[in-house]
Amino acid sequence: MDLSTIIGFVLAYVLIVVALIIGAGVGVYIDYPSVLIVIGGTLGVVMINFPMAQIASMGKVLSKAFLHKSEDLGELIQQLVGFAVKARRDGILSLESAEDELDDDFLKKGIRLAVDGTEPEVIKTILETELDYMEERHKLGASIFGAMGDFAPAMGMIGTLVGLVAMMQSLNDPSSIGPSMAVALLTTFYGAIIMNMFAGPITGKLKVRSAEEILMREIMIAGIMAIQAGDNPRIVEQKLNAYLSPGKRKSQFD
Amino acid sequence: MDLSTIIGFVLAYVLIVVALIIGAGVGVYIDYPSVLIVIGGTLGVVMINFPMAQIASMGKVLSKAFLHKSEDLGELIQQLVGFAVKARRDGILSLESAEDELDDDFLKKGIRLAVDGTEPEVIKTILETELDYMEERHKLGASIFGAMGDFAPAMGMIGTLVGLVAMMQSLNDPSSIGPSMAVALLTTFYGAIIMNMFAGPITGKLKVRSAEEILMREIMIAGIMAIQAGDNPRIVEQKLNAYLSPGKRKSQFD
Amino acid sequence: MDLSTIIGFVLAYVLIVVALIIGAGVGVYIDYPSVLIVIGGTLGVVMINFPMAQIASMGKVLSKAFLHKSEDLGELIQQLVGFAVKARRDGILSLESAEDELDDDFLKKGIRLAVDGTEPEVIKTILETELDYMEERHKLGASIFGAMGDFAPAMGMIGTLVGLVAMMQSLNDPSSIGPSMAVALLTTFYGAIIMNMFAGPITGKLKVRSAEEILMREIMIAGIMAIQAGDNPRIVEQKLNAYLSPGKRKSQFD
Amino acid sequence: MDLSTIIGFVLAYVLIVVALIIGAGVGVYIDYPSVLIVIGGTLGVVMINFPMAQIASMGKVLSKAFLHKSEDLGELIQQLVGFAVKARRDGILSLESAEDELDDDFLKKGIRLAVDGTEPEVIKTILETELDYMEERHKLGASIFGAMGDFAPAMGMIGTLVGLVAMMQSLNDPSSIGPSMAVALLTTFYGAIIMNMFAGPITGKLKVRSAEEILMREIMIAGIMAIQAGDNPRIVEQKLNAYLSPGKRKSQFD
Amino acid sequence: MDLSTIIGFVLAYVLIVVALIIGAGVGVYIDYPSVLIVIGGTLGVVMINFPMAQIASMGKVLSKAFLHKSEDLGELIQQLVGFAVKARRDGILSLESAEDELDDDFLKKGIRLAVDGTEPEVIKTILETELDYMEERHKLGASIFGAMGDFAPAMGMIGTLVGLVAMMQSLNDPSSIGPSMAVALLTTFYGAIIMNMFAGPITGKLKVRSAEEILMREIMIAGIMAIQAGDNPRIVEQKLNAYLSPGKRKSQFD
Repeated sequence: MDLSTIIGFVLAYVLIVVALIIGAGVGVYIDYPSVLIVIGGTLGVVMINFPMAQIASMGKVLSKAFLHKSEDLGELIQQLVGFAVKARRDGILSLESAEDELDDDFLKKGIRLAVDGTEPEVIKTILETELDYMEERHKLGASIFGAMGDFAPAMGMIGTLVGLVAMMQSLNDPSSIGPSMAVALLTTFYGAIIMNMFAGPITGKLKVRSAEEILMREIMIAGIMAIQAGDNPRIVEQKLNAYLSPGKRKSQFD
Repeated sequence: MDLSTIIGFVLAYVLIVVALIIGAGVGVYIDYPSVLIVIGGTLGVVMINFPMAQIASMGKVLSKAFLHKSEDLGELIQQLVGFAVKARRDGILSLESAEDELDDDFLKKGIRLAVDGTEPEVIKTILETELDYMEERHKLGASIFGAMGDFAPAMGMIGTLVGLVAMMQSLNDPSSIGPSMAVALLTTFYGAIIMNMFAGPITGKLKVRSAEEILMREIMIAGIMAIQAGDNPRIVEQKLNAYLSPGKRKSQFD
Repeated sequence: MDLSTIIGFVLAYVLIVVALIIGAGVGVYIDYPSVLIVIGGTLGVVMINFPMAQIASMGKVLSKAFLHKSEDLGELIQQLVGFAVKARRDGILSLESAEDELDDDFLKKGIRLAVDGTEPEVIKTILETELDYMEERHKLGASIFGAMGDFAPAMGMIGTLVGLVAMMQSLNDPSSIGPSMAVALLTTFYGAIIMNMFAGPITGKLKVRSAEEILMREIMIAGIMAIQAGDNPRIVEQKLNAYLSPGKRKSQFD
Repeated sequence: MDLSTIIGFVLAYVLIVVALIIGAGVGVYIDYPSVLIVIGGTLGVVMINFPMAQIASMGKVLSKAFLHKSEDLGELIQQLVGFAVKARRDGILSLESAEDELDDDFLKKGIRLAVDGTEPEVIKTILETELDYMEERHKLGASIFGAMGDFAPAMGMIGTLVGLVAMMQSLNDPSSIGPSMAVALLTTFYGAIIMNMFAGPITGKLKVRSAEEILMREIMIAGIMAIQAGDNPRIVEQKLNAYLSPGKRKSQFD
Repeated sequence: MDLSTIIGFVLAYVLIVVALIIGAGVGVYIDYPSVLIVIGGTLGVVMINFPMAQIASMGKVLSKAFLHKSEDLGELIQQLVGFAVKARRDGILSLESAEDELDDDFLKKGIRLAVDGTEPEVIKTILETELDYMEERHKLGASIFGAMGDFAPAMGMIGTLVGLVAMMQSLNDPSSIGPSMAVALLTTFYGAIIMNMFAGPITGKLKVRSAEEILMREIMIAGIMAIQAGDNPRIVEQKLNAYLSPGKRKSQFD
C-alpha cells in the first residue's frame, strides 16, 4: 500500500468537502449533466489520444500509484554482494542454486545469463534494452494521466463557454443570471479538480515510482556485471552503494 | 481501423451536442461567419507555417490516426527467430526465399542486404538512417496538427476580441449586449473545440503510433543484425523479447 | 516563391478583414496611436533582445519564408550517385571537371576537398562544422521572430492596462466606457495579430525550411564521404535514399 | 546561514504586510478556512504526488535553502594541488595520513580508493555514480517544492471557484457581493503567495545550491583522477582552476 | 557600447510614456507604494532564489547587455592562420613571442600550453573545461534576470489581488470603485513592464552575447588544436572559416 497516496487523497478531498459545506452546501456544487460532460468528454478525448490497449490498462497503471511497495535497496545490495562473495569462492556456477531463491524475474534472468556463460556485452545489451523499454512503457502509462490532466480543464472550459453563451440569451432576466453562471462555472470547477486533485498528482507519483524501479534495476545490472567480471566483493559493494544516499548504505565488511 | 479514435470521437461529440441541447439549443451555438473565420483563419496560418507539400499530405497523415493497425510484435519476433534458426542451419543465403514472404519493405530490404553479404556496419547505417528520417517525417506530420492546435484558440481569441470591440460600440443598448457577447464568445468556443477535441488528441495519437512503428523497426534492426552476426537463436530471442513487456513475450524454446 | 506562405497570408487576412466588416466596420478597429505603441514597443524590446547585426538581417531572414524554393532531393541523390559511378570508373580526380557544373557552394567545397586528397576525417570535420553553425545561425534568425511573437502580445497587454486605468478615471460617465474599453482592447488585438498571424507562423516556416536545408546538406555530406571512401555506387544510392521517404526515392539501377 | 534567503524573505514579507495595511488592513486578508483549504489541500495533493519518505524529508531539504554554506573552491583546489605535490614527492601512499585531516566524506573516499591502488576506471565509476545519483536525489528534493508551487495556485483557483459559485446564489443581495467576492479571491491570493513567495524561490535556491555542490564534487573527481595519474602539480592546478571564473583562481606556482 | 540595447530602451520607453500621456496623463500611472511593493517584492523573492554572491554581481552582468563589443571573428581567424603559418615555418616555439601581443587571456593560455609542449589531450581538456564552466556561469547570470522576469508579474498579480480585495470592501460607494480598481491594476502594469521591457529582453541579450563568446572560444580551441597538430595553414583556415557564415569569411590564400 502506498500510504501517502491514500492519506493525501483523504486529506485533500475532506478539505474540499469542508470548503463546499462552508461555501453554499454540497448540493449546489453537484450538477449531474456537467459531471457527465466533463468526465465523459475527457474520457472521449483521451481515447482519441491513445490506443485501445493503453486505455484498457489504465486501471492497472493506476493501481501502481496506490499499491506500490518500495524495495529496500540496501538489502538488495547486500544480497548482490553475497552473490559476489559466493561467486568468487565457489565459481559463478554456484549461483545456479541461489537463483531459485529470487523473486525478481529481471534479476533472475540476469543471473541465469551470467551462469550460462553468456558474453558480458550480450548480457548488458539484453538487460539494458529491457530497462530502456520498461522506462518507455512507464512513460506511456503515466502520459495517459498526463493527457487527462491536460484535457480535463480544457473540457471544463468548453462546458463553461457553453453555459455562458446560454446565459447571455437571458440577460434580461437578472434573477436567472446567478444560478446560470454558477452552473456554467461548475464544469471549470470539475476540470480543475480532475487535473489538480487526481490526474496531476497521480502522474507525479507514477513518475517517482518509475524512477525508483529504474534505480533498482540499474543497481541489479551493475551488480550482475560486476559479479560476472569477478570483481572483489568489497569493490562490488562500493560500486553499488554509490547509487544510494550515504544514510542508506549498509556494509558487511566494516 | 483504430477503434479508440472512432469511439473517442463519437463519445466526445455526442456529449458536447447533449451539452448544447441542455444549454440553449444547438442553433444558438452555430454562427457561420464565426465558423468560417476560425477554421479559415487557422488554415491560413497553418499554411504560412508549413510548405505546400506538407499541407497536401495532411489527409494522409490524419488517416493514420483512424486506420492504423497495430502489429503483433510477439509474432514478428518469432518470425525473426525463425529466420535466425534457418540462417544457422542452412546458411544466411537460405533467407533469400523467405524474403519473398515478407510484406514489410523495411524488413525485406534489411534481409536482402544481409543476404547480399553487405558489411554489418553499412546495413546498420542504412537501416538506422531510414528509421531516423522516418521519425523526423512523423514528427513533422504530427507537428501540423500541433500547430493547428496552437493557432486555433488564438484565432478564436482574435475573433472574440473583434466581437467585444463591436459590442462596446453599442453598450447603450442593453438588450443587444447579451446576444453580441454570445456571438463574440463563439469563436473562442470553436477554437477550444478544434484544439481540445480534434488537433490535440490527434497529435497525441500520431505520436503514439509513431512510437509503435519505431519500436517495430528497432526490433527489426536488432533482429537483422543478430541474424547477420550468426547469433544463437535463443540469444536472438532473448535480445528481441527484451523490447517487449514480459506479458507479451513468446518463446519457441521453452 | 513559397506559395503556401503567400496563399496562407491572403486567406488569413482576407478573413480577418471580413470579420472586421461584419463586426463594427474596419474603421473602428484602427487606432493609430495603439498601432504605433504595439509595433514600436515590440520593435524596441526586440532591439534590446538582439544585437544590431541581427536586427539588420531580419528582412533577409523574412524573405526566406517567402522566396524559398525546395530542392528536389531525389535529383540531388542521382547526381551524387553519378559522381560515385564516375569516381569508381575514372578515379576521384575525374570529379574536378564535374565540380564546375555545380551551383551549390557547399557541395562544391566538399567535392574539391575530396579531389584534393584531404583526409576523410578533416573533410567531415569541416563540412559538419559548417552545417552545425549554419543551423545555429538559422535558429538565431528564427528566434528574432519567435521573440517578436512573445513580446507583441505582452506589449498589447501593457497597452490594454494603460487604457483600462485611463477608463477607470471616468467610470462616472457611462457613455464613455464603451469606446474607451474598445480602444483599450485594440492593443491586445494588435498584439494577438502580430503573434498569431505573422511572427508565430513565420517562425514555424523558417524552422521547416531550415530543417529541409539541413537534410539536404546531410545528404551531401553522406554522399561525399561515400564517394571519397570509394563505395559501390549501388550502396551509395541505398545509403542516400535512406534519407528520403520511400515515395521520393529514385534509382538508376533498377 | 544563507543570508540572501533570510534577507529576501524578510524583505518580501514586510513589503506584503505593508501592502495589506495600505490595502484594507491585515485582518481583511485573513480567512482561516481559506488558509486551511489552500495549505491543507496543497499538502494533500503533494502527498499523492510523492512517497512518504520524500514528504518526511521536506524539512531537511528546506533547511538547505536556509543553512547552506558555500565552500571556497579556490581553497579546495589548493588543497588538491598540495596533495598532488605530496604524491609526486613521497608517493601516493603518503596521502594516507592527509586523508585524516579531511572533513568531506566524498573526497576522503576518493583519496582512500586511490591510496588503496584501485584501478582509475573503477574509482571514476564509483565517484561519478555517487555524483549522478546525488544529483538525482537533489532534483527529487527540489521537485517537491516545485510541485507545491504548481499545485498551490491551482488549489487557490479551486477555492475561488467554490466561493464564486456560492456568491452566485445570492446575487440578489448586492451588499453581500463585495465581501463574498473578497473571500473568494483570498484562496487565489494565498495560492499565489505560496507559489511565488515560498515554493518557487525555494526551488530556485535548492537548484543553485545543488549546482554548487555538483561543481565542488566534479572538481574533487578531476583532482583525484589527476593525482592518481601522477600529473605534474602545475597541470593539476591548471586543470582544476579551469572550473573557476578567472577572478577566483589562486595559484601556488606564480 | 551595445547600440541596439540603448536604442531599443529609448524607443520602447518613449512610446510607453507617449501612451501614458495619451491615456490619462503620466501622473495617474504612478503610485509609489505600488512601485515599492512590486520592485521590492520582486527583489526579495529573487534574493531567496539566488545566493548573495550572485545578487551582488547583477550589476556586472547587466553591464554586459549594455557595453558588450562584438569581436571580428574573421580577424581572429586570420590571426590564428598567421600563427599556423609561423608555427609551420619556424616551429611552434616561435609563437612564444606572438603570445605577448595577445589581449585575450583564454587564447594566450592556450598558446602558452601549446608552446610548453603540453599534450594535446590535456590542452583540450583544460580549455574545454574552462569554456563549459564559463557557459554555466553565463547561464546562471542570465537566469537571475530570467527569474526576475518570472516573479515580477506574479508580484504584480499579488498586488492586484490585494487591491481587489480592498476594493470589494467598499463596493457600496460606486465613486471609489474606479480609482481603487485603477490602483489595483497598476501593480500588474508594473510587473508586466519589468518582465517585458526589462528582464525579458535583457535575458535574451545576455544569451545572445554568451553564444557569441562561446563561438569565439570554440574557434580559438579549434585553432590552437590545429596549430598544435601542425596542420597545413590552408586547412586551418578552412576548418576555422567553417564556423562563420560564408559572407564573413576572409582568406589569405585566394
